Amino acid sequence: MHSQPQQSILGVDTPQVTARAKVTGRALYAGDYKATGMLHGKVLRSPYPHARIVRLDTSAARALPGVKAVLTGEDAPAALWGAHHKERAVLARGVVRYCGEEVAAVAAISDEIARDALDLIQVDYEELPAILTPEEAMDEEAFGIHPGRDNVGHRIAFERGDVEAGFASADLVHEATYTTHSQYPGYMEPMATVASLDPDGRLVLHTSTQAVNLVRMQVAMTLGLPISRVRVVQATTGGGFGGKIVEDDNQLLAGLLALHTRRPVRLVNNRLEDFQAACASVPEHITLKLGMRKDGTIVAKQVRIIAECGAYAGLSGDVMHVSTMRSDNMHRNPNVRAEATLYYTNNPPRGAFRGFGGTQMQFALNSHIDTMAQQLGLDPVQVHKLNALSTGETSVHGWHIGSTGLRECVDQATQAIGWAEKRQHPNGQGTKRRGVGMAAVMHVSGNRTIGNWDGSTVIVKINEDGRVFIISGECDMGQGAATMFSQIVAHELGLPLSDIHVVAPDTDVSPVAVGTLASRVTMSGGNAAIVAARKARDELFALAAPRWDVAAEALSIGGGAVFVTANPEQRATLAELARQHIWRHGGGGIQVSGSWDPKTVMHDDKLYGNIAPAHSYAAQAVEVEVDTETGQVTVIDSYVADDCGKALNPVAIHGQTNGATVQAMGWTLYEQLHYENGRLANGNFADYTMPTADAVPMLRGGFVETHDPNGPYGAKGASETAILPGAAAIANAVHDAVGVRITDLPITPEKVLAALRAQRAPQGAAHA
Amino acid sequence: MHSQPQQSILGVDTPQVTARAKVTGRALYAGDYKATGMLHGKVLRSPYPHARIVRLDTSAARALPGVKAVLTGEDAPAALWGAHHKERAVLARGVVRYCGEEVAAVAAISDEIARDALDLIQVDYEELPAILTPEEAMDEEAFGIHPGRDNVGHRIAFERGDVEAGFASADLVHEATYTTHSQYPGYMEPMATVASLDPDGRLVLHTSTQAVNLVRMQVAMTLGLPISRVRVVQATTGGGFGGKIVEDDNQLLAGLLALHTRRPVRLVNNRLEDFQAACASVPEHITLKLGMRKDGTIVAKQVRIIAECGAYAGLSGDVMHVSTMRSDNMHRNPNVRAEATLYYTNNPPRGAFRGFGGTQMQFALNSHIDTMAQQLGLDPVQVHKLNALSTGETSVHGWHIGSTGLRECVDQATQAIGWAEKRQHPNGQGTKRRGVGMAAVMHVSGNRTIGNWDGSTVIVKINEDGRVFIISGECDMGQGAATMFSQIVAHELGLPLSDIHVVAPDTDVSPVAVGTLASRVTMSGGNAAIVAARKARDELFALAAPRWDVAAEALSIGGGAVFVTANPEQRATLAELARQHIWRHGGGGIQVSGSWDPKTVMHDDKLYGNIAPAHSYAAQAVEVEVDTETGQVTVIDSYVADDCGKALNPVAIHGQTNGATVQAMGWTLYEQLHYENGRLANGNFADYTMPTADAVPMLRGGFVETHDPNGPYGAKGASETAILPGAAAIANAVHDAVGVRITDLPITPEKVLAALRAQRAPQGAAHA
Repeated sequence: MHSQPQQSILGVDTPQVTARAKVTGRALYAGDYKATGMLHGKVLRSPYPHARIVRLDTSAARALPGVKAVLTGEDAPAALWGAHHKERAVLARGVVRYCGEEVAAVAAISDEIARDALDLIQVDYEELPAILTPEEAMDEEAFGIHPGRDNVGHRIAFERGDVEAGFASADLVHEATYTTHSQYPGYMEPMATVASLDPDGRLVLHTSTQAVNLVRMQVAMTLGLPISRVRVVQATTGGGFGGKIVEDDNQLLAGLLALHTRRPVRLVNNRLEDFQAACASVPEHITLKLGMRKDGTIVAKQVRIIAECGAYAGLSGDVMHVSTMRSDNMHRNPNVRAEATLYYTNNPPRGAFRGFGGTQMQFALNSHIDTMAQQLGLDPVQVHKLNALSTGETSVHGWHIGSTGLRECVDQATQAIGWAEKRQHPNGQGTKRRGVGMAAVMHVSGNRTIGNWDGSTVIVKINEDGRVFIISGECDMGQGAATMFSQIVAHELGLPLSDIHVVAPDTDVSPVAVGTLASRVTMSGGNAAIVAARKARDELFALAAPRWDVAAEALSIGGGAVFVTANPEQRATLAELARQHIWRHGGGGIQVSGSWDPKTVMHDDKLYGNIAPAHSYAAQAVEVEVDTETGQVTVIDSYVADDCGKALNPVAIHGQTNGATVQAMGWTLYEQLHYENGRLANGNFADYTMPTADAVPMLRGGFVETHDPNGPYGAKGASETAILPGAAAIANAVHDAVGVRITDLPITPEKVLAALRAQRAPQGAAHA
Repeated sequence: MHSQPQQSILGVDTPQVTARAKVTGRALYAGDYKATGMLHGKVLRSPYPHARIVRLDTSAARALPGVKAVLTGEDAPAALWGAHHKERAVLARGVVRYCGEEVAAVAAISDEIARDALDLIQVDYEELPAILTPEEAMDEEAFGIHPGRDNVGHRIAFERGDVEAGFASADLVHEATYTTHSQYPGYMEPMATVASLDPDGRLVLHTSTQAVNLVRMQVAMTLGLPISRVRVVQATTGGGFGGKIVEDDNQLLAGLLALHTRRPVRLVNNRLEDFQAACASVPEHITLKLGMRKDGTIVAKQVRIIAECGAYAGLSGDVMHVSTMRSDNMHRNPNVRAEATLYYTNNPPRGAFRGFGGTQMQFALNSHIDTMAQQLGLDPVQVHKLNALSTGETSVHGWHIGSTGLRECVDQATQAIGWAEKRQHPNGQGTKRRGVGMAAVMHVSGNRTIGNWDGSTVIVKINEDGRVFIISGECDMGQGAATMFSQIVAHELGLPLSDIHVVAPDTDVSPVAVGTLASRVTMSGGNAAIVAARKARDELFALAAPRWDVAAEALSIGGGAVFVTANPEQRATLAELARQHIWRHGGGGIQVSGSWDPKTVMHDDKLYGNIAPAHSYAAQAVEVEVDTETGQVTVIDSYVADDCGKALNPVAIHGQTNGATVQAMGWTLYEQLHYENGRLANGNFADYTMPTADAVPMLRGGFVETHDPNGPYGAKGASETAILPGAAAIANAVHDAVGVRITDLPITPEKVLAALRAQRAPQGAAHA
């Protein structure tokens, strides 16, 4: 009975290791937590986009039996919070700046009593004029939403190469403005936190989050606690999509209520509250000017972005930064100029969202390339392939392209959709017209922007039964980090997946981690897991080698055992070795830590520098049907080709890709936050129409495996890229189908009908 | 503003770091845990010391509304458990072997329903003959308590030197038999466990324990789970005294009930249950024969021990082993012989207890030396000092004496008590006679007996506020491990104690630890903490040195900062450096692990070898008053001199010493488990008379700091030694006071009166 190294699990379709707990209902989301003496939190929110709080009387609420705390701005710490600008109060102080802003927080012995208490809080507001669009915000006469400041939240400007010379050398210069709107993250689980005090009086949060360490930092800093007096444990997290990084007041309010009541407090957003409290994505007006030679070579690019962060900037400036720059790194064009300004308004705060600003700009750029290619009589496929940077090249912003499968993605997606036959051969029957469109995009795998560290540390612990624990602070919010970690460690140590257990991130014991953002976890976390697993393996080899009087190099690992490569009958199980490692002189057991940090740099003050260790690419081709009678656009086929370097878990990436594709469809065709004078009118899933199964075709896709030199086994990030091309691919297909160009998202039936009418009208009839 | 290295906290009276949580009632004992859907466990115990279970009908109990499980031996795993002999069923299978044995376990939605369910379980027993004394057990005609085996649980025999020659060379040979009884651990918190399943279906125990890893091993092995499928977290533990190492069925039953019901189950012993379930100490009959020259030199020692483990051996064999051997290592005598046998009976299982067998033998040995000294006209003080091994010597069993303050302890204690004036000058008024007695003892600091590892691993994590977490698997059950760890790390990193937080032991994330036994934690855990703290310090130094262009050796740490020793104004706070350590190329934060394992050996098959890295010594002198009318013995003065190497926390050691002194007084004078036909008759604190404040004099004590070369800063174990001398010191004082020698513990008024009567009676009157 000797062991053969088992088949590696890398690249094998692998169900999520978290799936069993979730489908059996045993997974513990923060909303499932119960604790002795636990109170229920509720938040009173501003009904006005801008108002002065004239009177705030909580006495009736406080007097309600079962109410344990009613807190207002006066009870909250003076410290303001926010990712960059510390400008947001935990509870409003004197003024509210958006409809939904937190005015008071209640903790009571039941959810019902807490709700009743909200009704008993008397607030007199003096309504103030509200700024509801960036245009109003930039008016020189406009009041400052934040006292003593203008309404600019962030500004970016750069110019590289000779943009004017570039435009002068172009055969075609085209300029257009694209408008993108805000999308609600739409995760299954609204924000939820249970805050309590541990026996030492430290504040403990079990919370839905993508980043336990960022939450700990923010909560400690804002609530005025030393960071060590705060513990953040990730509860099972039902989706994040960028919305659960660190921009939510939920954790701060739960913590504040727990500190005041000295009791556990559960604060779970209902869906409406989550719509009001979550940061939706950043809406941008993008004016794009591109110069192209007649062969399709892009020779100059100029971008002007007006973005809106709502009342508080949060991460919106970083999002706009990505919109401004990232797509420049797709193409060989050396002449780029950009100017972007983020404006405050009295709308709810915007922030991080899957794609992180890439989505907005890729809609503009890919729409633009489609338009210009057509004007030049070129195939946009060729334009993309012609301009694409190749592996080994450095982009205009100093990004080193370690691997790129952009061209292959373009080919794979368009071929799959029947591009050659269908493009510019619109067909269909009667009022149902069909067309195809494509778009090609890039994303980063990691990003050295928070401090100067983009690394990760993973602890591998081998137990006496030969099974392994993985301890990391990187969060799985459904995207599959736990499965990825498990696969890597299982592969390195030759174990079945069932022998691996991933411990939930906990700031008390997990190594510090940046968290799950910028598609960085497979890259940095995965590489750290390899380092840790190999350290553990080396300890096993060092322990085992003397058994057979061989060098460690003569050993292999697999099938749950270490064995002599040349003579696999000489073997010892991991369980046996793990026990031996403990119970010996100088023993203690295998619990090793591995770290990895990419050799990237922070960009310099001119925003130049290689910030990401690798870049993912994707192309999407779609076929749509446009009903010229109703204006309704239906996606009838979609294929996403994904250069994720190496697909460690194909089925998981397909799932992520499909989810991203649907989320992009929602943004492009269906979802829209409706505000009436700054007040959200459709904060529920009946009125905020996310795509349902009947709206989605059988989604197709494939991989382009480029094996990035920095990635773990060549892998790159694979959960965000696929959201980037959808909007442009659909818009381009609509244009292919019916010849109208929608530049203002979402592509609603009304807009399509209006464009069709304008198209049919005789030239000049628009003035009629 | 520059930092001066602050005063070290080592050697400074330091309140327990766990004290605030305990005195405010916030500490979470297992009995305080509540969990969603939690059930309450109860255990039905055998009313007979030996019986066959003829019929066991649980149907009525199962039918009671609110009852979720009624388990019997048929539901429990077939695997038997026990420290050495796997002989004990989780729930009795067909036969019960002691009164109190677990027959059935219930889980119900309330404690009341669980208790009612117990009443509804119908058991028909066929009572069997019971063996209730070792004498019955050793009868050749006796039945075997465990089928197919004789009633011997363990046997030890050795002989070194030439014992017969030794006796032949002696001027006085004295033999006597001493009888010691069983003592209930008497901790404040009875055994308690909350068992639940985590979302992955793993079994999680929050439990009162001294050793999370030993519990995990035992639970996994017995319940048939891979060890990685069990997680053990130490709840706040209200005392252990050896009784919470790994000999209790509580954790197994709680786990079994949780596995069956798939719900959390809390199983808390009430005091009677705890009396029935806890392992009390091992009762021993010790026949000691000592040869002494007329100058007091001990030249030969022969020991015969008959010990009783009750129905299941547990750790009793190890306890007996210590009784047999440890005291040999106090004296230079090369001629020792011992024979010890552990017998099963149908009494409740016995096991580990503070002192771990040392107490029994030291009662005999110190009583014996007192007697022989008197017969030779010597002062026992001089006999002890004459025979004591000195630092640097090796004992008859191969123990290297790295440091000993035995002589100094003897001097300090006896001088403090007024030995010179009071010894052999009994005084008092009327029927109240006073006398003084002393005893001198040794203990180990660590013991290489479990596997071949007696080491420890400690993780030190420096947070971004410069505060530190300590992660270890070594348990604080009230004795002060958390404070010791905190002091050491605070000292090494120049921080105030309030900047240190000790994370509760948790087998998922803590490094493997043997646990708190054999007075090993200050030794192994403390040394590991030094290693870890210095690693962390070295990382800080390496990071800071380039700031001032100096070598790491030029730096110091203190006052919460690293600074240039020669120019303390060049400084950086730990907070600043901890953040820098994270946010930089190759960063990630300081989380380092330190290990230490003593250079001891496991004893060989002749029980020879240096098993402990250091040895603690103590001497106690007491003055007692004996009421010759009532036989009542009252301790009116007590002084314990403690060689703990270096007193890291004097007030804590005084607390431990005083507690041990009182526990020894209880064993010697007051406490006695009364059985009526194998059934415990006084399992409560009203009838089991532990000493109360009125029985205890103002306890005095002092340190002899010998600075052991292996100990952390010279420290040795200090929580167990002080329990060892009490019984003999009191017995010797009684003899000094009234001339009667009680060799049969406890020293009850009845025994004293009987002895006084016998003393007063004319020679031969005993036959009358």
